[in-house]
Amino acid sequence: MRYDIAIIGSGPAGLSAAINAKIRNKSIILLGNENLSNKLIKAPMIDNYLGFYEISGEDLKDKFRDHLEQMDINITSKKINNVYAMGDYFALMSGDEMIEATTVILATGVEYGKPIKGEEEFLGKGVGYCATCDAPLYRDKKVAIIGYNEEAKEEANFLSEIASKTYFIPMYKKEGLMRSSNILDNSIEVINDRPIQIQGDNLVNKVAFKEKEIDVDGVFVIKDSTSPKALVPGIETEGAHIKVDNNMNTSIQGCFAAGDCVGKPYSYIKAAGQGQIAALSAVSYLDKLKIK
Amino acid sequence: MRYDIAIIGSGPAGLSAAINAKIRNKSIILLGNENLSNKLIKAPMIDNYLGFYEISGEDLKDKFRDHLEQMDINITSKKINNVYAMGDYFALMSGDEMIEATTVILATGVEYGKPIKGEEEFLGKGVGYCATCDAPLYRDKKVAIIGYNEEAKEEANFLSEIASKTYFIPMYKKEGLMRSSNILDNSIEVINDRPIQIQGDNLVNKVAFKEKEIDVDGVFVIKDSTSPKALVPGIETEGAHIKVDNNMNTSIQGCFAAGDCVGKPYSYIKAAGQGQIAALSAVSYLDKLKIK
Repeated sequence: MRYDIAIIGSGPAGLSAAINAKIRNKSIILLGNENLSNKLIKAPMIDNYLGFYEISGEDLKDKFRDHLEQMDINITSKKINNVYAMGDYFALMSGDEMIEATTVILATGVEYGKPIKGEEEFLGKGVGYCATCDAPLYRDKKVAIIGYNEEAKEEANFLSEIASKTYFIPMYKKEGLMRSSNILDNSIEVINDRPIQIQGDNLVNKVAFKEKEIDVDGVFVIKDSTSPKALVPGIETEGAHIKVDNNMNTSIQGCFAAGDCVGKPYSYIKAAGQGQIAALSAVSYLDKLKIK
Repeated sequence: MRYDIAIIGSGPAGLSAAINAKIRNKSIILLGNENLSNKLIKAPMIDNYLGFYEISGEDLKDKFRDHLEQMDINITSKKINNVYAMGDYFALMSGDEMIEATTVILATGVEYGKPIKGEEEFLGKGVGYCATCDAPLYRDKKVAIIGYNEEAKEEANFLSEIASKTYFIPMYKKEGLMRSSNILDNSIEVINDRPIQIQGDNLVNKVAFKEKEIDVDGVFVIKDSTSPKALVPGIETEGAHIKVDNNMNTSIQGCFAAGDCVGKPYSYIKAAGQGQIAALSAVSYLDKLKIK
């Protein structure tokens, strides 16, 4: 099955894109989290989303979820590692699985936090962002998962089946929505401490904390969002952001983007507005293909 | 008093701009209608504003109004006829009154309806869009007001004090929010018929209906929104829309625009999102002025 529109991200931009695409009778797949947006649910109070005054992020998330449910829109909880432009369609890779779509809307957000010391230096030299992609490299080796969200546990569980030793280092305070898949395997050692540095020579060999260090062969940093260039090879960016025009077209035909990933301000209703524009641009692109 | 930000228009773009500017502690004046948006309140059902599913335009308007009231934001019911860039500030003309602001956000919407036959041909030759501006020209003459909204009655009342004969031709079906100022003066003749053509030789002399015509010296067409070029002399447009960049900057420094007036899609959450961007761009512009 080839979807008309694949939407990557379940923050306000992705959700708004989904409802608008569905209203226009397009077949869609919405890829994201059951939590919708980890950033959103952590917001204590939002007062700049027109129509809701002093609403908590958690409550606004519930409003968004209601809206989706009323429209029978489901979220597919799959992490997309790469998006390839194949000419007349896009191939979205999730581990070994491939999802096909005629158009793609990127609503992947942006990462606020600073990287850990050594994270960027050792990227590709033992540091990775996708455990399920690179797991085979760590058979019978020692790995650490530095997890910025609950979903990171899934990657830790998967790795623990392959690696000889798996550490899980949670970087978030509040527990999110609990699901069975959020329970860590017993063999995994949880370290409730902040990593200070990822160390190594040519390749990673240690994660250092304030008062101790652990020996590892690999480190996976699992964040809410992926860097656009790593996700979509060849896409034009401006700094950390995806370059778009006023209609949310990216530099790749049939690929649109919206929300925090296209630039500041990082805010909810701006993201929702752009998600709508991106969806309508995708619809118009699809309609033009039909005429050809 | 010079405001930091003057916002023209009380649709979703203007309202979103207002709440965001207020949150950033800027002094604002929000110019619009008590109804907020005649377009919005006429919408039977809205399902693409993320967070509200199947809400009527009237109910969404109430949500917006609550939001404004919670934040102590008032709407100033004044029609702005012209905005002049004066160098380090803008002069907003409302009849004889002048409002000063360091920045302006245009959220003036767009007119859907087709012009009446002859309307564009006789613009400036007896056809005008601002009765209070041009009233002195029609002392002791006959004028017709073609009104697309309730507020047109105010212009009719004002003209009736000057003109020898005033006709009022309502182009809307549903009565809006009734206020004392919405009651027409007894001297005004109401014509409940659709005008087919505005006629004349060099100057307007007639309004024709299907089965009759009336002799007039001037015709005022009172719509919800004003053409951007007529409102802000010198502003760059693309077709009917104000040209903006991704940050909602217009071609005039310190002047921003958002919502339907900057282009399609004509929709609420896109307008609200752009209103937020425009406000934050205005805030950033104001903050840079302070540093200089």
